[in-house]
Amino acid sequence: MTLPLNPAMAATFPPPVMEARRWLAGLVFTDAKPLINVSQAAPVDSPPLGLRQALAEAALNDPQAHLYGPVLGLPALREEISAQWSVAYGGTIAPSQVAITQGCNQAFTAVMSTLAGAGDEVILPTPWYFNHKMWLDMQGVTTVPLATGPDLLPDPERAASLITPRTRAIALVSPNNPGGVEYPADLLAKFRDLCRAHDLALILDETYRDFGSRDGRPHDLFTDPEWDNVLIHLYSFSKAYRLTGHRVGAIVASAPRLAEVEKFLDTVAICPSQLGQIGALWGMRNLGEWVAGERAEILRRRAAMINGFNALEGWKLLGCGAYFAYVEHPFAASSADLAKRLVQEEAVLMLPGTMFQPDSHPEGTRQFRIAFANVDAAGIAEMFNRLKVFRG
Amino acid sequence: MTLPLNPAMAATFPPPVMEARRWLAGLVFTDAKPLINVSQAAPVDSPPLGLRQALAEAALNDPQAHLYGPVLGLPALREEISAQWSVAYGGTIAPSQVAITQGCNQAFTAVMSTLAGAGDEVILPTPWYFNHKMWLDMQGVTTVPLATGPDLLPDPERAASLITPRTRAIALVSPNNPGGVEYPADLLAKFRDLCRAHDLALILDETYRDFGSRDGRPHDLFTDPEWDNVLIHLYSFSKAYRLTGHRVGAIVASAPRLAEVEKFLDTVAICPSQLGQIGALWGMRNLGEWVAGERAEILRRRAAMINGFNALEGWKLLGCGAYFAYVEHPFAASSADLAKRLVQEEAVLMLPGTMFQPDSHPEGTRQFRIAFANVDAAGIAEMFNRLKVFRG
Repeated sequence: MTLPLNPAMAATFPPPVMEARRWLAGLVFTDAKPLINVSQAAPVDSPPLGLRQALAEAALNDPQAHLYGPVLGLPALREEISAQWSVAYGGTIAPSQVAITQGCNQAFTAVMSTLAGAGDEVILPTPWYFNHKMWLDMQGVTTVPLATGPDLLPDPERAASLITPRTRAIALVSPNNPGGVEYPADLLAKFRDLCRAHDLALILDETYRDFGSRDGRPHDLFTDPEWDNVLIHLYSFSKAYRLTGHRVGAIVASAPRLAEVEKFLDTVAICPSQLGQIGALWGMRNLGEWVAGERAEILRRRAAMINGFNALEGWKLLGCGAYFAYVEHPFAASSADLAKRLVQEEAVLMLPGTMFQPDSHPEGTRQFRIAFANVDAAGIAEMFNRLKVFRG
Repeated sequence: MTLPLNPAMAATFPPPVMEARRWLAGLVFTDAKPLINVSQAAPVDSPPLGLRQALAEAALNDPQAHLYGPVLGLPALREEISAQWSVAYGGTIAPSQVAITQGCNQAFTAVMSTLAGAGDEVILPTPWYFNHKMWLDMQGVTTVPLATGPDLLPDPERAASLITPRTRAIALVSPNNPGGVEYPADLLAKFRDLCRAHDLALILDETYRDFGSRDGRPHDLFTDPEWDNVLIHLYSFSKAYRLTGHRVGAIVASAPRLAEVEKFLDTVAICPSQLGQIGALWGMRNLGEWVAGERAEILRRRAAMINGFNALEGWKLLGCGAYFAYVEHPFAASSADLAKRLVQEEAVLMLPGTMFQPDSHPEGTRQFRIAFANVDAAGIAEMFNRLKVFRG
């Protein structure tokens, strides 16, 4: 490239999901052995008919659906989130503490831009969600990896030892991507206390919240009347209502923080897609029971994953919950190579742990992430049949 | 705010359009004197029925409309742009040189992220589009203002004198926002040559292209077989097909540049809204004649603006084209104050020149931007009636 290239961008790795899609190029899958794609956390079926009808109706007849809206999102959607989540989390979340984004990845980038610039540091537990790492890299923010143990849970004391004067935030994902583990409420409270003691932001991404295995609220962070002086909460409507193609996410944070977020969103978004927001709002008002049914089905698939790995010789399940299983394979080769051979030989596409670990963590070569939530019971059984014969 | 705040974000001004919306709070407009809102470049009517039906049909029946798509956009839309624009611009644009974004503002931020980081410099003619300035501020990139003369056209020699070893790009908007002027083809060629001589990127934002007054292609930049070693072209579908609420824009640049853009878009977008892309593609295939009619109507409104200002004592029209008129007012007070009084007293909302000029350019206090394209002939006539009685 003869034109200038921002060195921070040049040093950022390319999108792993797009790289994995390229492994499919030239491959032909048969009806007898169709591709089992567990690479991306994406619903494959359409949203329920009622939601699609609501979108179609708005596209045809609602002039607002085609116009710019407020940068921070549709007031009605911000109010609905405020009302429902205040109840669900047992705390008080005002509409002014809610912003809508073009998906939860954008929520992370917007929030992070208000917190950290080049030279600052952010702590991420490993394995991490690669898009978080990419954003920090391209912004010149140093990612400080917080290694987890065999249970994939981050240790607050270990995190404390990584804090420096340049640390700005600790970002957690629960249920975890890629690890599948659900962080216990008391662990999250400890991270909240740690962040508060050091004037750091605690970012909690609960994209996969609706498919957790626990009943009741997953944590007590919002019961703290002063939650907004430490907590920044992120959410995605993509998985709950199958709206991935519409790009709708949310941020819950203090109103002054959202005034800073608004600057970022104005320049990269102007506003979220109106139809996407209309769909999310319709979902919140109408799909509570439907989501509960989806969750029950995903929990059955989770049980199938646990049973399957218990019976699969040599493999070890490190974490399993919501959308993901994170596993250790028994072979000498690196998962980076094995992933390509798995799709060529067994028509199973999963992402290698090397995509979720820094180079300094060689355990990534032993690991895979499996986004199992979109594969039905028969598909999961067939995946285990293929893993059983895969010789690495 | 007790939590960390990125100082570059803190130093970035808040979204001007949202600020102007707040001036409306508490005001009551009557049927006798309704609000004339010329603050934002936004179509107010819905897209044509056929496009709305296409969106509704896809929402109901096209499973792909609800799923993640490729980061750089729908292949069919990239191909359509490649085919149509190669003809329109008299050059060769490959599908691999086209990317789709969630609006043209995102296109600018994505491209700029690949070019410039903190400490780098970018040259913008003044008056500038404030969202460009906001993005550069929050990224720690220095905006170097290129003052224009009374004709609002940037001078390549003056630009040359501003280039330093940290300069990474010159960004032009034609037809201009906020100035309304259409940059002549030979002026753009001179900027291309200047950028090439200094290994800078020439960013050309043609969001308002479809409503220009000239027939034929607006410039010859794409006829250069090596256009992609200097030119980065930006476009918006928002105005042409009235899709503002769907957020669809485009980048045309070299394929290696787009590989860098893909990293940015993956982290802030994952993919553009699928329905928005479906709408843009339908528009490209079906709305050519309709857009020509829209253009003819906007050109009539432009003529009304020119005639109106010629007849309005004390005011001076500096530029007028596509969506905008940029004008000088005759009063002693600053446009920043006058703008609020204009909406209170005369129910006309326009943005003051101070929003488009750096503090070092006091001429902003004498100027206003008027986004006239969405106001019909009667509305334009009524606006002049009100400006006539406004005493500053």
